Amino acid sequence: MDISDLGFDNISLGHGSGGLMTRELLDRIIFRVFSNPYLNQKHDGSLIRTEGQLAISTDSFVVSPIFFKGGNIGELAVHGTVNDVAMCGAMPKYISLAFIVEEGLDIQDFIRIVQSIKRAADDSGVQIITGDTKVVERGKGDKIFINTTGFGPLHPKAKVSAENIRKGDKIIVNGNIAQHGMAIMSQREGLEFESSIESDTTNLNFLIWELLDRFGDKIRMLRDPTRGGLASTLCEIAADINKGITLEENKLPLEKQVAAACEILGLDPMFVANEGVFCTVVAPEVAEDIVHAMRDNEKGKNAVCIGEVTDEHPTKVIMKSSIGGKRIISPLIGEQLPRIC
Amino acid sequence: MDISDLGFDNISLGHGSGGLMTRELLDRIIFRVFSNPYLNQKHDGSLIRTEGQLAISTDSFVVSPIFFKGGNIGELAVHGTVNDVAMCGAMPKYISLAFIVEEGLDIQDFIRIVQSIKRAADDSGVQIITGDTKVVERGKGDKIFINTTGFGPLHPKAKVSAENIRKGDKIIVNGNIAQHGMAIMSQREGLEFESSIESDTTNLNFLIWELLDRFGDKIRMLRDPTRGGLASTLCEIAADINKGITLEENKLPLEKQVAAACEILGLDPMFVANEGVFCTVVAPEVAEDIVHAMRDNEKGKNAVCIGEVTDEHPTKVIMKSSIGGKRIISPLIGEQLPRIC
Repeated sequence: MDISDLGFDNISLGHGSGGLMTRELLDRIIFRVFSNPYLNQKHDGSLIRTEGQLAISTDSFVVSPIFFKGGNIGELAVHGTVNDVAMCGAMPKYISLAFIVEEGLDIQDFIRIVQSIKRAADDSGVQIITGDTKVVERGKGDKIFINTTGFGPLHPKAKVSAENIRKGDKIIVNGNIAQHGMAIMSQREGLEFESSIESDTTNLNFLIWELLDRFGDKIRMLRDPTRGGLASTLCEIAADINKGITLEENKLPLEKQVAAACEILGLDPMFVANEGVFCTVVAPEVAEDIVHAMRDNEKGKNAVCIGEVTDEHPTKVIMKSSIGGKRIISPLIGEQLPRIC
Repeated sequence: MDISDLGFDNISLGHGSGGLMTRELLDRIIFRVFSNPYLNQKHDGSLIRTEGQLAISTDSFVVSPIFFKGGNIGELAVHGTVNDVAMCGAMPKYISLAFIVEEGLDIQDFIRIVQSIKRAADDSGVQIITGDTKVVERGKGDKIFINTTGFGPLHPKAKVSAENIRKGDKIIVNGNIAQHGMAIMSQREGLEFESSIESDTTNLNFLIWELLDRFGDKIRMLRDPTRGGLASTLCEIAADINKGITLEENKLPLEKQVAAACEILGLDPMFVANEGVFCTVVAPEVAEDIVHAMRDNEKGKNAVCIGEVTDEHPTKVIMKSSIGGKRIISPLIGEQLPRIC
């Protein structure tokens, strides 16, 4: 987009006033980039037509820095919510979009973020149907925070619920873990280190839908292990189902570079945030087929079965090392790395 | 709620980690206060059953101070979104709730806000079905920001659209303007002045639904003039419909105290934010009946017809004074008062 005709270089408090400057920001950037029949009504809300069960999820994104290797806060805000809706067994169709901008944000940065939201929404098959923009004074925010709320119809065959998980069910992940967290960390003030690790931020909704098409209620559970990493998600599942989970350490998909960076910083990749990873608990009889189906898709090409559900050690997640050792994976207590998403 | 068993006095970064501390905050405050079948799934999203047309609206709330005369940011976040959905001609049924908390927020303040959200949601007939909590470092936010996204079914008789507005249609407001803005202003740092003006924050959804029941498509347009005040909303409508709007100054419902405070500060009450006010454009033949119907309801007891739509002076809003003078109401350009909602 040509910035030369905008007449301002930064976001100012007036852009959050609800007056002409707000209208101008909307007309010249937001409506221009996102133009669709829902937004073009320029109303405070939108109407959609729905039927049956609808999944809904909301997330606010406060990642810092806002631009990082492999992505930025804009696409992250789309993918994050798209994936949360997908994890309910649904296909996200619509998202709302609300900005809290700190006074002084470079308008070029804002435009880059908006354009990246548009691309991510298009790629994910979702429309931005309603939104909001607030501006806070310098020092009362941090560049930009974004809330997205997404919704879409439940897959007719989906029966995604912790209640359906049985002893012997297999746990599968679609790809390499810990990439997003390590990408952010490599650029974080005070931690900066040379690395080419990129965030894995991406949408997973089409792959999930395809799996539900083929395997229906054999897919018991879907979760995307973002904040807190794969360990926190599995610990939560184990606690919720009152069963144990056994993992095989040598199966965990982990890039060499990421493993090395984790080792240098003394971090366990199991606790590092992901954005393009999901784990699924599936019926044992289809586990192998599901891994193969996932590997046929670019977004599941590193899919692997990493463990299973057991009646032993209920509520506990146990990691078996390649040489036969066992250790308990305890849930993360406090903060490993704030503002990762 | 008894705070003595919480074991912490402030929100810390760990509460946004996605680990055990997040779970504790959710289990001990959020789930305890909001307990309902949707939230109790403790999933990243929720499922609702819908049919037909659904209205959706999102808003982030950054009001400062977070506690003010007549309300706080929590109930404001519920009412604001409930009203935006109602202005689409719909009945809000569900809302999502996302917090961005600044590290160090007093847990007592957080609990007060959460409890006030619960009360406002109950009073408005909406359920909180999904949520999110992020924590940012001290100095990177301002106590608490809240996003709510609301949705609910469209009224079967609703035909709320600028396209239906005709010359001669009447403009009605339900009550006294400028209260919210002046309540905030009286407490704002640097502006503090003695006043007992209270915010008018409240839900309008039941009154709107009742009007739609009785008057259906005779109600052409519904808008809540929040940021930018009644003037900005009417200027937007005039521009959108390419018609003029004529207002009668002596009809404007305005409390004496609010009028006096505006005069002292040199503010035009037409530009001051409202939270419990809506304006509606209605067919002239039912205007009087609508005013009476509104007056029968506590939330419309000061309802009055303030003007009408005209073919003269298209896109312009003209105010006629009590002594026959006329002035153009120009839309607000920049910021009159930041962070009013």
